[in-house]
Formats: sequence, structure tokens, C-alpha cells
Amino acid sequence: MIGIENIASYIPPRRISNYGRKEKFSITDEFIEDKIGVKEVSVKGQDEDTCELCVKAYSALAAKRQMVPDEIDALVVVTQNPDYNIPHCSAIVHGRLGLRSSCAAFDISLGCSGFVYALSVLSSFMERNGMRRALLFTSDPYSKVVDQEDKNTSLLFGDAAAVTMLSNTPVLAPMKFSFGTTGSHYEDLICRNGKLFMNGRAVFNFTAKVIPDDIRFLMELNGMTKDNIDLFVFHQGSKIIVDTLAKKLEIPPGKVAYNALDFGNTISSSIPIILEEELKGSANTILISGFGVGLSWASTILRRV
Amino acid sequence: MIGIENIASYIPPRRISNYGRKEKFSITDEFIEDKIGVKEVSVKGQDEDTCELCVKAYSALAAKRQMVPDEIDALVVVTQNPDYNIPHCSAIVHGRLGLRSSCAAFDISLGCSGFVYALSVLSSFMERNGMRRALLFTSDPYSKVVDQEDKNTSLLFGDAAAVTMLSNTPVLAPMKFSFGTTGSHYEDLICRNGKLFMNGRAVFNFTAKVIPDDIRFLMELNGMTKDNIDLFVFHQGSKIIVDTLAKKLEIPPGKVAYNALDFGNTISSSIPIILEEELKGSANTILISGFGVGLSWASTILRRV
Repeated sequence: MIGIENIASYIPPRRISNYGRKEKFSITDEFIEDKIGVKEVSVKGQDEDTCELCVKAYSALAAKRQMVPDEIDALVVVTQNPDYNIPHCSAIVHGRLGLRSSCAAFDISLGCSGFVYALSVLSSFMERNGMRRALLFTSDPYSKVVDQEDKNTSLLFGDAAAVTMLSNTPVLAPMKFSFGTTGSHYEDLICRNGKLFMNGRAVFNFTAKVIPDDIRFLMELNGMTKDNIDLFVFHQGSKIIVDTLAKKLEIPPGKVAYNALDFGNTISSSIPIILEEELKGSANTILISGFGVGLSWASTILRRV
Repeated sequence: MIGIENIASYIPPRRISNYGRKEKFSITDEFIEDKIGVKEVSVKGQDEDTCELCVKAYSALAAKRQMVPDEIDALVVVTQNPDYNIPHCSAIVHGRLGLRSSCAAFDISLGCSGFVYALSVLSSFMERNGMRRALLFTSDPYSKVVDQEDKNTSLLFGDAAAVTMLSNTPVLAPMKFSFGTTGSHYEDLICRNGKLFMNGRAVFNFTAKVIPDDIRFLMELNGMTKDNIDLFVFHQGSKIIVDTLAKKLEIPPGKVAYNALDFGNTISSSIPIILEEELKGSANTILISGFGVGLSWASTILRRV
């Protein structure tokens, strides 16, 4: 059985404060703290490209656990902000980490649903190909495409990367997954000519409508109810979306994670950044759900092994 | 068991002749026919984006087999020339084909090794998630990034897309796979500022060195020798690379496929375009091997069910 053995992350130290932009965008403290739930966003250094963020997350992992490059059977990078379109980031990271030539490597292009999707894709791939250890990177620095004059996006998205080590000696193992796509709404979150555009209301409405049903379906698929779930980790889209999902699903606030206040919505890294803390926590069942660009969503339940 | 049930492809009708560029690039008929093995390259229309090529390949599939959109459980697009980086092409294609919302969709970023990789990734994902039918698109129109003044690339790459239907009632099913990466050589084939650069000699040398060993390893992994393989389908990088691999592996010419003369190297579509013909052929065992950008490679043996 393949699952999550370890997680490390890298959040760049530089911050842009949303309090400093109250006048510019005509926003209040209440908007910052309770609605979007982001006091400041993390921003990568100019010399930190998408692959470099991965390498820094890997260094954080190596500080927790002795890394043996030759033990890595596969490497995946989830990103929609690659350093080049040709080649894939996973090849570049493979080279920088000095992994062996029989290591498989590919990128998955997905946004906020990417971690949950990739957990299924990579663990299935490993099981089928008899692999024991793999690295799942999420690195999607939206500062590359965010227009600092755009209120809808600049207050929200933060840069970060995470690396999740999947192995046959997991701490948290996934149960059954659910997946979904509404491709006809792809223009609600899109990058054209290097500039990100988001129809915030449309994405919010989509999420509030689709995700509660998906999560009910997922729990039924796994023969569980919300009472069996110790912790709900939704993608940290904004505080209002996390609160809305919790309310619609009637989950007590204490069972819902939120941690984006000090760095923002880090796309596919938002869920592993929370799970990194929970690895040593007490929750035995954790429901994770990612949703966003595509529009796309994926959910599963992690069980402590 | 998940494998290949059907394949269809779309090669745009427009061609640029390499004979018409003999003077410009100081090349001979012998160079065109025997070395690169490409008389003319296919070029997509200006209105044909990467997703549109997928939709046209799907139309070709629908002409062969009645398609029921609600039967599709998953959709993958393999590309490094997406129409947008955000969102992924698979979401756009999902919308254009009117697939159901519980259909999974993601893109894989890989080049010439992409079809073989994705065959493993998607079939593993389907098996693990209990899915029965999925569409694997390859669509990587290099005309978007090829500099028509560059002899190393403009004579070689052709536009095309293919769609491979994976299902639990396959005609050809994959045996074990091998995968590899030499990420330290990623700059040998790279797109910078929208322009493709290829160190042709380095990519050739890498392929001629690494792939024969990989194929020997793969055959051993599957308990087979070259005498058990009816047909070898190498990525159609150029005629000289296919001939070199056949010679190094001492494979009789009649057992090695080559079909790129009239449209060129179509990246991740080169293997499925050949397999489309072989689905109704007599070969019981077909070795497929893709290699290129990354640098990356993947190989497997397909067995007729």
C-alpha cells in the first residue's frame, strides 16, 4: 500500500501586506480577516523559479529525514507555472537533485485540485510499476502571473512549494477518491497573455454548489459519515469559501482547518502544507478536497496507518 | 485489465515540403529521404489550437466507433504546447466534448516519451479508481514554437493529434514498463522565449546510447527476447535514429516501423499514429519506446488480447 510518509514545504519569507493595500483597493480589516482570510501574501524572490522552490522544499525534507537520491523511483511536479513549457519541471528538478537515471519523472498540469489528483495518479502509478518511494512536488507560484493592480487575485494568492514523500511505509494512506470537471467553465480562471484573470464570484458559486455534494458522495463511497471524519482539510481558496463549505456540510468549526492568514492561497500546496502539521497530529481520518481552475475538483479520505 | 481499445488521429492537411527548402538549408535529397526521413511536415491551420486538434482526433474516433460521452470516466491530454498554461487543455477539451461532470481530467507535460508514460499513468489510475473507459489525447503542435529559419527543427517536426481509447475490453494490453530521466541534459531540447532550440547531435547521441540498453532491460523484465517481438515501434524522431536503434539492437528491418516521411516527427503522437494501423494488424507483440525532451524515455511491450 502506497501513501504519505512525509511532507515538507517552503514558503518564501517575503510578504506583501494586505493591510497596506486597504486604501488602494477600498477594503476593510473585516474583509481582510474574515472574508478573504489573508493578512499578507508570500512572494518568491526573483531568482527563485518554480523548480528552485521545489529544490528548497526538498532541502526542508532532507532536514527532517535522511534522503538517499538513489532510493527515489519517481518524481512528479504539479504546476501550471512551469519555468519552461518545454521541458517539464520534473526533468529539471531531477537533474538538480541528482536522482538516478531509472527514476520516472513527469509533470501534471492542474491547479488547486492538483495535490489530491496527483496523490491518486502517482500512488496508482507506483503500485502498478512496483515502485517504493516517490516525490510529489507542488509548486505553482502565481506571483508570476498575478497583476498587482487586480483586487480579485493580488490579495489572495501566495507563493509556496511542498514536497510529499509517497512510500510503501505510509503514515497516512488514501481511501477511495472522487474526481470531477466542469470544463465548460474554464474561462472563469484563466491566464491570457501572461496575466491571470479570475471571475471570483463564479468560482465561489461553483465551489459552494458542487463541493458539498461531492463530499457527501465521497463519504458514502467510503462507507463513512461526517462523524467518522476527524478533520476536514479543504483547499484554502479563501476563508469565506472554507467557512461556507463547513456551514453547508454542518461541520463543527473545530474540525475544519484554516491556515492561510499569513501567506495566502498557495494553489496545489495549500493542502500538503496543512497535512505536514497533521502528520504528527492525532486525527485518524482526514478528508481532503481540492477545487479550482478547470474547473476541477478531487477529494479523498486519508486514514492513519 | 485496462489497455488500448481503439485509436484515431488527425494530421492537418497543410504541408511544407522539405524539397522546397533544399537550397535555403543546403541539403540534398539523400539527407531528406534517408537521414531525417521527412519529405514534408504537416502544419496546423491558424485557427486550430492544441485543444481543437484533440477535438478533431475525437471526431475521427467517433467516425470509427459510436461515442457515448457519458461513458468516459477520465480524459488526459499530453502536451507541452498547451493553449493556456492556466487552465489545462483537458478541461477545455472536456467542455468542448460535453463530457459528464464526474469525468476526471488532467494534463501530463511530457514530450516524445509522453504517450508511453501516459499509457502507464492513465491505465494505473483507471484500474485503481475502478474506471472503465478513458481518452488519452496526444497533441503537441510544435509549429507554435518552431523557428522556420532553424534547420535543426523546422525540417523535422510535424503537427498532429491522436486519441487513444483505453478500456477494460482492450485489443492491445501493456506488459511491464521501463522509465528513465536524465534531467541534467534538459537544455538539449528547450523552448526559451517562445522559440524551440534543439542540440540535435546531443539528443541523437543520448538516444543511441541510452535506448538500446533500456530496451534490452525491458525485454528481460518481461521475460522476452527480440525474437518474441513481432514489431518495434520507436518514437519517429528521424529516420536515422530509428535505423540506428534497429542496427544497434540487430533487429531485421521488416520488424521496425517507420511512417514519418509524409508529415514528420509528431512528438507524442508518433507512436499512436502507427499503432492505429497495427490495431487491425497481425503483430501479437509490439514493443513501443518513446524518448526525447527532458531528456526522458519510456518503453513497454503491448500484447494482443
